[in-house]
Amino acid sequence: MEVGLVGLGNMGSGIAKSLLRAGHRVTAYNRTRSHLDALVSDGVKPAATPADACHGDAVLTMVADDSAVEAVVFGSSGVLSALPKGGLHVSLGTISVSLSDRLAAAHSNAGQQFVAAPVFGRPDAAEAAKLAVVAAGPSAAIERCRPLFEAMGPKLLVVGEKPSLANVVKLTGNFLIASVLESLSEAIAFARKSGVDPTVLLDFLTSTLFNAPVYKTYGGLIVEGKYEPAGFAVPLGLKDVRLVLQAAEAQSVPMPLASVIRDRFITAIARGNQHSDWSVLGRIAAEDAGLPAAKTDGA
Amino acid sequence: MEVGLVGLGNMGSGIAKSLLRAGHRVTAYNRTRSHLDALVSDGVKPAATPADACHGDAVLTMVADDSAVEAVVFGSSGVLSALPKGGLHVSLGTISVSLSDRLAAAHSNAGQQFVAAPVFGRPDAAEAAKLAVVAAGPSAAIERCRPLFEAMGPKLLVVGEKPSLANVVKLTGNFLIASVLESLSEAIAFARKSGVDPTVLLDFLTSTLFNAPVYKTYGGLIVEGKYEPAGFAVPLGLKDVRLVLQAAEAQSVPMPLASVIRDRFITAIARGNQHSDWSVLGRIAAEDAGLPAAKTDGA
Amino acid sequence: MEVGLVGLGNMGSGIAKSLLRAGHRVTAYNRTRSHLDALVSDGVKPAATPADACHGDAVLTMVADDSAVEAVVFGSSGVLSALPKGGLHVSLGTISVSLSDRLAAAHSNAGQQFVAAPVFGRPDAAEAAKLAVVAAGPSAAIERCRPLFEAMGPKLLVVGEKPSLANVVKLTGNFLIASVLESLSEAIAFARKSGVDPTVLLDFLTSTLFNAPVYKTYGGLIVEGKYEPAGFAVPLGLKDVRLVLQAAEAQSVPMPLASVIRDRFITAIARGNQHSDWSVLGRIAAEDAGLPAAKTDGA
Amino acid sequence: MEVGLVGLGNMGSGIAKSLLRAGHRVTAYNRTRSHLDALVSDGVKPAATPADACHGDAVLTMVADDSAVEAVVFGSSGVLSALPKGGLHVSLGTISVSLSDRLAAAHSNAGQQFVAAPVFGRPDAAEAAKLAVVAAGPSAAIERCRPLFEAMGPKLLVVGEKPSLANVVKLTGNFLIASVLESLSEAIAFARKSGVDPTVLLDFLTSTLFNAPVYKTYGGLIVEGKYEPAGFAVPLGLKDVRLVLQAAEAQSVPMPLASVIRDRFITAIARGNQHSDWSVLGRIAAEDAGLPAAKTDGA
Repeated sequence: MEVGLVGLGNMGSGIAKSLLRAGHRVTAYNRTRSHLDALVSDGVKPAATPADACHGDAVLTMVADDSAVEAVVFGSSGVLSALPKGGLHVSLGTISVSLSDRLAAAHSNAGQQFVAAPVFGRPDAAEAAKLAVVAAGPSAAIERCRPLFEAMGPKLLVVGEKPSLANVVKLTGNFLIASVLESLSEAIAFARKSGVDPTVLLDFLTSTLFNAPVYKTYGGLIVEGKYEPAGFAVPLGLKDVRLVLQAAEAQSVPMPLASVIRDRFITAIARGNQHSDWSVLGRIAAEDAGLPAAKTDGA
Repeated sequence: MEVGLVGLGNMGSGIAKSLLRAGHRVTAYNRTRSHLDALVSDGVKPAATPADACHGDAVLTMVADDSAVEAVVFGSSGVLSALPKGGLHVSLGTISVSLSDRLAAAHSNAGQQFVAAPVFGRPDAAEAAKLAVVAAGPSAAIERCRPLFEAMGPKLLVVGEKPSLANVVKLTGNFLIASVLESLSEAIAFARKSGVDPTVLLDFLTSTLFNAPVYKTYGGLIVEGKYEPAGFAVPLGLKDVRLVLQAAEAQSVPMPLASVIRDRFITAIARGNQHSDWSVLGRIAAEDAGLPAAKTDGA
Repeated sequence: MEVGLVGLGNMGSGIAKSLLRAGHRVTAYNRTRSHLDALVSDGVKPAATPADACHGDAVLTMVADDSAVEAVVFGSSGVLSALPKGGLHVSLGTISVSLSDRLAAAHSNAGQQFVAAPVFGRPDAAEAAKLAVVAAGPSAAIERCRPLFEAMGPKLLVVGEKPSLANVVKLTGNFLIASVLESLSEAIAFARKSGVDPTVLLDFLTSTLFNAPVYKTYGGLIVEGKYEPAGFAVPLGLKDVRLVLQAAEAQSVPMPLASVIRDRFITAIARGNQHSDWSVLGRIAAEDAGLPAAKTDGA
Repeated sequence: MEVGLVGLGNMGSGIAKSLLRAGHRVTAYNRTRSHLDALVSDGVKPAATPADACHGDAVLTMVADDSAVEAVVFGSSGVLSALPKGGLHVSLGTISVSLSDRLAAAHSNAGQQFVAAPVFGRPDAAEAAKLAVVAAGPSAAIERCRPLFEAMGPKLLVVGEKPSLANVVKLTGNFLIASVLESLSEAIAFARKSGVDPTVLLDFLTSTLFNAPVYKTYGGLIVEGKYEPAGFAVPLGLKDVRLVLQAAEAQSVPMPLASVIRDRFITAIARGNQHSDWSVLGRIAAEDAGLPAAKTDGA
């Protein structure tokens, strides 16, 4: 297929490579030109504006947050004005439910189609075509995208016809991961201060009830106190929990556990961990227990 | 081996059968005589008091809570007074860290040995010899128990020489399970009220990042709203979270997430769910979101 | 003075009367025309648009929330375009810190002046000229407003030159009131279920350590379970706590207690109390304790 | 009256002086003899054991916590065994609801009478006869005590016939004070980081809605960051919140705000503030916001 791609951060660059490898043609735009240049040798055609990426079968956006999406979609030389009638915009990023609803309405008003298709997976999974894609939107539009999703990873969930349902699923997933981070952080602080070797504890738990990747990966980071470099930085984690809380508030759903986690991320930033991985909640729990940050620091 | 067993509730009865099946001889005491009678045909020899179960190689206790342990150990005709010098008491139940420390001291003062060996698993796992055992205590005493642990399940973790370390691990595990219950409850309430089919959501999550038994089992109960009959009733869940918080407070470790969960269990009881499974946190989250208790109720 | 006033809800109408009584001349605009007509006999001159209220010495805005302020200030026929160079806009409502900052910048760019002057007090205090005013903005502009503030109430606090500082103070005050609501709600539920007469408890507390109006007024409402009609409805309380949390997050200040209160307001709405007074947190606490809503209901 | 007094800490010593000044005769016991000797010149007659203080019209206990009460009441040479039939024990300390119930039962079984009469006020108020007394117990016993209560302060609340009701009121009051501490701590951290002078803020709030002693006193300590020496140390605050939560759990009353406060006190201890006043929650909130501990430190 012939696609446009707006946004070539770590995730967008990986997706571009996977799309090319699957035989799709990619015209891409990125605000920072150097990221784009790095991909030209892989076969990406450069676009000077988001609008320039809006021809072919679909335009994909993978940018940092709501305001970045607003800029590339609603701005001058943006996707909304450039996309032809019947054109298709696929939003791959983690955006708010309310923005997703606004995008659906705006594209519909312009006679265009909109699919929300946020992804689960880190940059290496994006490049290795191992993402899990959660998509929602009009069935016909989803079908048009299917070859693109297949190029991005083996796992596709179609949630329904209303695009923002996919954003709900993505935010729910990230909330659950953040819950694992906080619960492991508290558990490990408690175990350490009680004299239990946290490595032994984690090995046991993740070989029995909790043998899921999320416990193994993040549990290991917390036990080691290895929060830098960030795979997914604290402000991004805070953003996602905030989006969950906003969307839940709009539906009148209280989420007390999400509220606790939000406060912990804010504390992490206030205490100087804004460049750390979101698993740095482990450091916050350790500090609040009067422990050194990790067992290798002497506890 | 020749062992005594005090406590024949659902867990104790299952363990008795597994021990017998592995060739051990079991003399057992239970406060409610009928539970004991039911096991006589399986080969259990009845004891009239805890003291009467205190001969052979070790006496195991598997009773409901701290006060039950205090009664069978420190009471008249209790384990402490009946056990000979060098005798071995193995506590299998989920008890407080502080009681475990008191037991260790009392047995030590009496020239006896004490091992804490709480187990992970439900009654069916106890009967099927599929428990995971977490043990701590003097190495020699642990070694003496090894054939018993092997009869109870394939998985054994030895945490250290101080018995209460095993209780810390058990409580930590139960806290992590309770965290999964609350996070799933909030996530599913949010998804349902946003229009996402929770069955689809759960299938997706448990086939990717959260493919661990604890998410599948409890997620299913919450999605179905199937909280009765209880596998593990709310008051037991509350008790374990309380024990975690007490032990953590004794070490000056704040656990804000555990505090939230404690309040939710109390709310569950206050609203009439004391006989429900601890996954009934799903009903509390649904009610607080103004939802019917489960999707099958019409949401 | 000659002033414009945009917004004639309960608060705005009361303020209009106080201004007139002090001898000021008031030209007012309200979206719903009937509220305006009701004040014409008091001497208010009607304006057809916000712009029509923008002559004289200052224009005051007292509308429901951020989006209402945005509409009357930034919209066509709005305050920003109508106010002359050197003109003064005084925002009396409870708005977000970030909107206050945006207003300050926009008016400054237009060569106009901006003062934020949110008020403490209920509608009856507005009409009786008993409001407490918290003002911030350029000193000269504050001085120009002083006769207006004096007409509104006897208490004036000037916080500084940056307008949004006044909004911080207002939000802080409302957070503290909401904290009183939740703490009294929990305390009274605990006391009632323990068998203490809550009326006796409240009389004692408010005659000793807690002899402040906020405890007497709201404590009485909670003890009586008298949540309707609303003096200040739940969604307004939720809005203010949300604004506190947003402003605090922007400064990286965690506020765990505010987070708890936010969840309780959301729960109140989800359970059908959206038209009740924000003290209805007392009903939520009672329900969560398995109590009837108030002692007069039989507890 | 002729009374015994067990416990001569800061509070007990002040009460002894007030009783003597009102013309009562006091025989006192204290574990640390030096505190007792210091009062002999005031007219206190020394007792060698709690039992030795158990003659006359009543014996009052004012010791640190539940376990100290258990020691002086249930121990050998304790109050329970020494008090004659018809004798009266008045517990003035802040003890648990469950211990109060146990004391009532034990004294009743021994044909003795029991009154719980915890007090509000700091040591200086005890010495100045300005305590507020909350009493519960059999009416006749309360009447016998009335001259003693009048010697302790001008304010007496009689809650009912069941002694532990008085303990519920005392714990409720302390929970409300702790709520003020945490809410002020968060409010002041937010205001400071937003650029508002906290002294100005506090002056304004305590001259309007919050003009109660508890806001003025503790607000001042938090604004000044003056947490040492402790008027009421963190571990005592934590103890009281713990007792509230235990008593509330026994009644199935969730108290989410109390749970947050408990975690904050634990954090305060873990971070080294165990000797500070319980208003040190202000330091915790400041640190979690990345602020220096008080405005005088440069913020």
